[in-house]
Amino acid sequence: MKNCRLIEFHRIGSTDVGYLTPLEGNKNIPFDIKRVYYIYDVPTEIPRGFHAHRKLEQVLFCLQGSVRVKVEDGEKTDVIPLDAPHKGLYVGPMVWHEMFDFEENTVMMVLASDYYEEKDYIRDYEEFNELLNTDII
Amino acid sequence: MKNCRLIEFHRIGSTDVGYLTPLEGNKNIPFDIKRVYYIYDVPTEIPRGFHAHRKLEQVLFCLQGSVRVKVEDGEKTDVIPLDAPHKGLYVGPMVWHEMFDFEENTVMMVLASDYYEEKDYIRDYEEFNELLNTDII
Repeated sequence: MKNCRLIEFHRIGSTDVGYLTPLEGNKNIPFDIKRVYYIYDVPTEIPRGFHAHRKLEQVLFCLQGSVRVKVEDGEKTDVIPLDAPHKGLYVGPMVWHEMFDFEENTVMMVLASDYYEEKDYIRDYEEFNELLNTDII
Repeated sequence: MKNCRLIEFHRIGSTDVGYLTPLEGNKNIPFDIKRVYYIYDVPTEIPRGFHAHRKLEQVLFCLQGSVRVKVEDGEKTDVIPLDAPHKGLYVGPMVWHEMFDFEENTVMMVLASDYYEEKDYIRDYEEFNELLNTDII
């Protein structure tokens, strides 16, 4: 799928001492890390997301528990389970995404390539599809 | 304590939809975010850390579960519980730190001001105290 791929990161450690996963901007993360946010205490029946970004690049992680992420690029739709802390889902520009089936106590953590800017969000699904067809992105 | 303080961050949301805590480099995080790492699956009896940094600045979070962090600046020692995802512990240069009492399923996440560099670590406690007394840091 365009602008969307699963990345497997390192797990340094062992079951004896625990694990550490390192992420570095412009190294194993394909952008400068300007913003980090995390989502927690989400009731299991609540979906989140429902938007795309014009320019923002992100990598989504599930550090505890599990969640499913629906992604759409206008041509394809996929549902990707995030269920291991060392797996990250790269979501680039113009990918509609929805997170759902949050397991109890799930923690999602997201690295983003820029600061929060409301103008970068496309929150209307019809507008998202129209923009994909105009080729002016 | 020198170079060490607890910071309370925002929680955006509600119990109905869950919470989001946003962190931005050089905004509510007092440095550029070059590196992010997270620690998980740590057996409850295993302590971690046992080092200080010459220059690195970090903010430590506990996104799930709880952990206690012992910090020392050469003059004072403190034990700080990290038990809520929106609380971060800023740990600057020359603070010896140890993490212990990891609750089961705890996830620690750390933002760091620079890439991993082994030369920046002081892993010997006596050397740490000697360096504090030499004033050449």
